[in-house]
Amino acid sequence: MATSNWQAIAKQKRDAIFAAIPQEWRISNPPSVEEQPDVTQYIEQFLSKKELDITACSADQIAQKCGSGKWTAEAVTRAFCHRAALAHQLLNCLHEIFFDAAIQDAKNLDAYYQVHKRTKGPLHGVPVSLKDQFHVKGVETTMGYVGWIGTFEGQKGTGKEKVFESEMVTILRNAGAVLFCKTSVPHTLMSGETVNNIIGYTLNPKNRRLTAGGSSGGEGALIGIRGSPLGLGSDIGGSIRIPAAFNGLYGLRPSTGRLPYHGMANTMDGQNSILSVVGPMATNAASLRLITQAFLDAKPWDFDPLVHELPWSFQAENSINENIHDARGMSKRGGKLCFGLLKADGIVGPMPPIIRAINTLVSALEAAGHDVIPWTPPSHRTINNTGFKAWIFDAGRDVKSAFALSGEPMAKQVALYANLKEEQEFSATDIAATNREIRALKKEYLSYWNSTVENTTTGRAVDAVICPLAPFPAAREGRYKYYGYSTWVNLLDYTAITVPVTTVDKSVDGKNEGYGAVDETDREIQDDCKCWFPFRVVLLRGKVVGN
Amino acid sequence: MATSNWQAIAKQKRDAIFAAIPQEWRISNPPSVEEQPDVTQYIEQFLSKKELDITACSADQIAQKCGSGKWTAEAVTRAFCHRAALAHQLLNCLHEIFFDAAIQDAKNLDAYYQVHKRTKGPLHGVPVSLKDQFHVKGVETTMGYVGWIGTFEGQKGTGKEKVFESEMVTILRNAGAVLFCKTSVPHTLMSGETVNNIIGYTLNPKNRRLTAGGSSGGEGALIGIRGSPLGLGSDIGGSIRIPAAFNGLYGLRPSTGRLPYHGMANTMDGQNSILSVVGPMATNAASLRLITQAFLDAKPWDFDPLVHELPWSFQAENSINENIHDARGMSKRGGKLCFGLLKADGIVGPMPPIIRAINTLVSALEAAGHDVIPWTPPSHRTINNTGFKAWIFDAGRDVKSAFALSGEPMAKQVALYANLKEEQEFSATDIAATNREIRALKKEYLSYWNSTVENTTTGRAVDAVICPLAPFPAAREGRYKYYGYSTWVNLLDYTAITVPVTTVDKSVDGKNEGYGAVDETDREIQDDCKCWFPFRVVLLRGKVVGN
Repeated sequence: MATSNWQAIAKQKRDAIFAAIPQEWRISNPPSVEEQPDVTQYIEQFLSKKELDITACSADQIAQKCGSGKWTAEAVTRAFCHRAALAHQLLNCLHEIFFDAAIQDAKNLDAYYQVHKRTKGPLHGVPVSLKDQFHVKGVETTMGYVGWIGTFEGQKGTGKEKVFESEMVTILRNAGAVLFCKTSVPHTLMSGETVNNIIGYTLNPKNRRLTAGGSSGGEGALIGIRGSPLGLGSDIGGSIRIPAAFNGLYGLRPSTGRLPYHGMANTMDGQNSILSVVGPMATNAASLRLITQAFLDAKPWDFDPLVHELPWSFQAENSINENIHDARGMSKRGGKLCFGLLKADGIVGPMPPIIRAINTLVSALEAAGHDVIPWTPPSHRTINNTGFKAWIFDAGRDVKSAFALSGEPMAKQVALYANLKEEQEFSATDIAATNREIRALKKEYLSYWNSTVENTTTGRAVDAVICPLAPFPAAREGRYKYYGYSTWVNLLDYTAITVPVTTVDKSVDGKNEGYGAVDETDREIQDDCKCWFPFRVVLLRGKVVGN
Repeated sequence: MATSNWQAIAKQKRDAIFAAIPQEWRISNPPSVEEQPDVTQYIEQFLSKKELDITACSADQIAQKCGSGKWTAEAVTRAFCHRAALAHQLLNCLHEIFFDAAIQDAKNLDAYYQVHKRTKGPLHGVPVSLKDQFHVKGVETTMGYVGWIGTFEGQKGTGKEKVFESEMVTILRNAGAVLFCKTSVPHTLMSGETVNNIIGYTLNPKNRRLTAGGSSGGEGALIGIRGSPLGLGSDIGGSIRIPAAFNGLYGLRPSTGRLPYHGMANTMDGQNSILSVVGPMATNAASLRLITQAFLDAKPWDFDPLVHELPWSFQAENSINENIHDARGMSKRGGKLCFGLLKADGIVGPMPPIIRAINTLVSALEAAGHDVIPWTPPSHRTINNTGFKAWIFDAGRDVKSAFALSGEPMAKQVALYANLKEEQEFSATDIAATNREIRALKKEYLSYWNSTVENTTTGRAVDAVICPLAPFPAAREGRYKYYGYSTWVNLLDYTAITVPVTTVDKSVDGKNEGYGAVDETDREIQDDCKCWFPFRVVLLRGKVVGN
């Protein structure tokens, strides 16, 4: 590939993606961002009543409807394909479109149901969108790199092109899921915004002036506008949780070794100090439960050697549920949960609407009978500074080689890698030192967590920690500047869930004029307090238990 | 520390170890190796009838005797301290002796038992010896490095010296174990023989012309001569299994993340591609079960962030037991196990007595109603070549810095590290590539394992794999030349157990004169067929299940 014609190759790919959208689903004159910043209602004019009914449903509801025979997999699939096609024209959220294969798969599922009078699996008929790291037969994986077009992970003639499938894809098919599209990512995957030279910038459906988040930004935008009920992203520093939060979704970042990553494309693959994990994003918690349980029921440890033999724990789930029900006064055992609350990390202060969301959540938990106590953990600054090293172990060699394949430029959002010099690459000795630091920080945090048993009235240490996902709501282009509220979880390898709490309200979420900034970064972010947007709070689980 | 007087410092330490042996337990004229190669019977003349009765018992029997009040912890502890003291004088197997603290701990346990009428925990009164990587309050950890004397892992003035304890030590104390000594290791830990400049060379009690194995060689020698009923070693390439095999013991190498390693000293600490694991060595399988279950019952995941929340699985244990009992005709379900058999790895052929042992084991399994089928896995040569890289990531920087602290020379057994050059250190990119290779090899092997379902009559893939632990029985000094039969397990991270099968018999285990060697290495090892010795076979479990 000549390095001079990357624009032409990117355009060809961009056009091919668009060309996969059936004529009848095209929007003849899509509105500009200025004309129509919020397209969540706008999109609905193009959909039939039946399509609207279907696409309004969550994944668990769809599984129930298909399982009971009320809906066919084909009808469900067609509805979501249509809505996804519209979404891409408004948001630039898709990298691969394979609606024809999806509809054929759906027909096969319907035939299976007719013959066997039962579903193929727990996800029978549920459309599932995939971040463009999954390999799916029949389509490419570019991960946003122009140089990966027509290759397998940048290599030509491997024989795997458009044939090889990731382990998780096989499990999804066996569970009855319908795969229909792959969603956009920032090239390198290392950004809280989604931008690349193939599809451009992925927009937030509630306000297209803002980012949909990243790196699973295509998933966030697509599920946010209900073009998919359920999707899979990946997370090495917040990449599931950021787009979930910015689009009002539930997102699960499991601990490593829980869900199968084998056979996925990745960036800086082989960096083993802080691992990327795969996890689901959906419109409700029940759908996260559905797909996570489906994965574990497939015994993924039989197929991915890095997955631990840890089935779904009903015992852990029941013991939590008991305390939830007890707190609601539904039983007499007096159980309740106790949450640790991290309002601010001491590095960058959360903006006013984030603070309001936290307060809303705390009030709701306390009203339900639970306790919320302060969380004063070991330094998050140290944790984040150490974790950052794992992202730059190779001084950008891997991503630079991917850019070099086509000669395309790097987006400003990932310019970090462009600025690193070859001689900054870590040696084995440096990496070992970092690994020892990470281990010590994990131990220190675990000890702190255990110590909270002294401050609760449950007889247990804190059950979960609540903290903002980011100090700001959805950012404007180029303004995702601070990752510390999501990255600490990756270093510690805790299970974390984003839970939508509220949306920004201009009438109450004014700038905090008296804010005393810690430093320049803190001040800059606080001054960005202009264009609020839907934001969310992270609910964090300490250790791998039920899910 | 001046680099000129390492000899004096080493001698001082060696003398201090010896000085910790009470006068009445000293052997006035210890026999030379030539006079008395086998000291397993010889040692017994110095012990009382009661001491002989106690030290003849396995750890599970001791736990039972102490638990029922038949024996006091003090009597048991004194007996093993005495036998261990004698053992050290004959075998050079101890690095730290703390009999006084052990006897005081035992007295406290007896007092506890008197007051509470129950044991402190499942290991109440059981003496447990520890490889000299464990930090125990009151004593040093040298790991065989002269430069670590008077320091904490080579550093002075850390405040941790003789105070800090490894997590596992705390768990052992809480379970009622009595800690009484730390055992010898080869400096660097990277050898199948045990030698260092402090205590010299650790000898095999059955034939002192031979090695006790390594790197947990002190454990092997001590437990082999019944100076301890139960000990803990560590294994990154065979270091638990080699000394277990060479001393007729059972040794368990668990998969990573199963037992707590936190707070142990280590070599090349922070190398995260192939991790060292800690595991037990004992005179029978029941003792391995006892201590492993005790560790898991302590919920080590609450204290070591790298341990997975995987309790002991009674379900897995029962399903295996059912098949064992069925095979014996004790029930009617017709269950049996199917073993894969790797007779030779295609790189170095096993010597005649190893082949005889394998055949003995196969006959025994078949007589018990089980199946044994050939194991023809992916290339072990590739696996071992890849795994070897992880041992030399830092080109010996870590171990060289430890030697540099005192100026002491490196033993020929670990000269590999001396010969590596600074510029051979792996970069982040090199390490990432190795990690990808390791992952691919794990996947390939897992796929092969799964594929054996086609060749069994159990409806399952092979339940376990049998292979030699080494191509030779216990080696002579400087002759441990091939590690491939143990290291493949470490790359794959499988759970493995050494099981004693038989001992060498000169009358039947003659040299295989017609042996067709694959290459020079193979020929050289086969030609070493002179001084047979007790050897064992590894029983390998594929995945983490019950233990």
